Amino acid sequence: MSYQIISRNEIQSFMKRAMIAVGTNISHAEILSDVLVAGDYRGHFSHGLNRLELYLEDITTKACKADGEPTVLKESAATAWVDGNNLLGPVVGKFCMNLAIKKAKESGIGWVVAKGSNHFGIAGYYSLLALEHNLMGMSFTNASPLMATTRGKEPFFGTNPMSLSAPANNGDSYVLDMATSVVALGKVELADRKGESIPNNWAIDKDGEQITDPKKLNALLPLGGVEKSSGYKGYGLAMMVEVFTAILSGSAVAPNVRKWGDNHITANLGQCFIAINPGSFAPGFNGRMSDLIDSCRNQEPAAGQPNVLVAGDPERQHMEKCDTQGGIAYHINQIDFANRIASRLNIEAPKILK
Amino acid sequence: MSYQIISRNEIQSFMKRAMIAVGTNISHAEILSDVLVAGDYRGHFSHGLNRLELYLEDITTKACKADGEPTVLKESAATAWVDGNNLLGPVVGKFCMNLAIKKAKESGIGWVVAKGSNHFGIAGYYSLLALEHNLMGMSFTNASPLMATTRGKEPFFGTNPMSLSAPANNGDSYVLDMATSVVALGKVELADRKGESIPNNWAIDKDGEQITDPKKLNALLPLGGVEKSSGYKGYGLAMMVEVFTAILSGSAVAPNVRKWGDNHITANLGQCFIAINPGSFAPGFNGRMSDLIDSCRNQEPAAGQPNVLVAGDPERQHMEKCDTQGGIAYHINQIDFANRIASRLNIEAPKILK
Repeated sequence: MSYQIISRNEIQSFMKRAMIAVGTNISHAEILSDVLVAGDYRGHFSHGLNRLELYLEDITTKACKADGEPTVLKESAATAWVDGNNLLGPVVGKFCMNLAIKKAKESGIGWVVAKGSNHFGIAGYYSLLALEHNLMGMSFTNASPLMATTRGKEPFFGTNPMSLSAPANNGDSYVLDMATSVVALGKVELADRKGESIPNNWAIDKDGEQITDPKKLNALLPLGGVEKSSGYKGYGLAMMVEVFTAILSGSAVAPNVRKWGDNHITANLGQCFIAINPGSFAPGFNGRMSDLIDSCRNQEPAAGQPNVLVAGDPERQHMEKCDTQGGIAYHINQIDFANRIASRLNIEAPKILK
Repeated sequence: MSYQIISRNEIQSFMKRAMIAVGTNISHAEILSDVLVAGDYRGHFSHGLNRLELYLEDITTKACKADGEPTVLKESAATAWVDGNNLLGPVVGKFCMNLAIKKAKESGIGWVVAKGSNHFGIAGYYSLLALEHNLMGMSFTNASPLMATTRGKEPFFGTNPMSLSAPANNGDSYVLDMATSVVALGKVELADRKGESIPNNWAIDKDGEQITDPKKLNALLPLGGVEKSSGYKGYGLAMMVEVFTAILSGSAVAPNVRKWGDNHITANLGQCFIAINPGSFAPGFNGRMSDLIDSCRNQEPAAGQPNVLVAGDPERQHMEKCDTQGGIAYHINQIDFANRIASRLNIEAPKILK
């Protein structure tokens, strides 16, 4: 059996133990582990336990601060500019989103940007916080350069993800959580490990030529692919994310963000968190959301296609599967990796459920 | 010679005359013609003079009101909910964007949504209004169903455009103005008229199969194309636009918007206008925008590619060309069309410059 199941509580508790063992403030370790387990639970395994080592290293090398609080540098009823003070990304993100939520409840909109932040895990974690208050939430981050601009050939923007969550009736919702590149780096790496080729509109080589051999990867393409297939729109969206994060906040910008893998350098990422109170606009928002979501899902699918989904449904299906099986199914390589961390840090390894 | 040049003032004045001749309020005719000439001047000919007949018909059939003002239904320092009262889209759009700008100057953010609106021309017109105040601007509209959802086969969403403009130094700027479909309907129609095939990731037929014959068009695909090439992201973005416009405002929603061409039915479109004051966040916004824009443009292009552009540059090049030649170059078929409107409405035809 190449997968083993660990309960959500147990894997979160393990990641928290690990972060505390390298000197992270306890509540920071709590927040970080909550974000990482949300990544795995929602099926985004690249942004969960898989990233724990990166955060441990950030704290160990002091590239990232283990203790402290973000600072509000400028504030109005609907806006705030925050210094993340080089704390863990999830600590900065949760602080900012909670501030945006408070402002949206009072002013209809809360628009908060942060400089001095770090990797914050899945963007959806933060937009989802707004749902708990029956608000819409949005989150954005810039990142290490991996994506070329249209007509460019070198990595320029990060995969610059964006998320929007909107509440519907009875706990239903729409949760968009997407990179503005065609695909995430992980999909190209996975093809490489499996010895498979990739579609020719995902990435380019050193000369800017489209590739199918993942080993030739120099940069990912923006959503849409090359210019002919409207990749300039994805490029424009990646720049929108950069404007909302780095340009508004004064953090490191696009090609000046530390290179992917340069984990000893301060990242100084920019992030943006927005909360919107639908109650400031037409009454009946949740009902209209439910109608829209249901009419998407209830369409007759195209020939040979499975049911139509809305953004957030694949994650919902994954969470239901986890709930049924009592936890998250990790590949044994991931569990070996966790066990090695446990020995190294002299902490209890995560208990396997089955 | 198949093109003739008409000065911007002259073509605007002609479109204004035409709208007034069918009974449109003078200032409404002024605003509409300003939006349409901006479409042509920026090179988006599908959204300029080419659309005049549609607006004339909207007024003539009383599908759209020729006089009146939008009403603010609910308002706070940073937000407003507006009833467009079925006035011309540009009248509603300009009203809402000016309101958003006023709010952004006072509160940092202005977020205004309208129901009861109509076609508003190019989305970029409204986001650009914010630049004149050194603010960022955004605009969104829903539209008649033309685009399928991922795994769907029937038109569900409109091409649901979005625009973001951000000011840089010395009048430079970034202006994203894009449909969330792979391409606009016009590009498929153009291929059809020319007897050309289309790339197989633009559109689908009645069964939801990808097509290369434009005559088989049933629905456009969302940005990214089919699911395998990440079209679910474009689908998610189209839904974001629908949420910001129809769901927030309580207008007609997605598949319930009048069919493309059903011009006698009230459209009841939803629209969203956002202004953001960069001064509420880190000082030095415009300089950072200029640095980002310039570093995009100054990249060495991929092998065989022309210079790297940023969103708004193609339009800038087109406007420079118009300025050099003294006006906008219209195809003679377009000019014949304008002349026929002039005879029909008994108004002066547009004067040809050369």
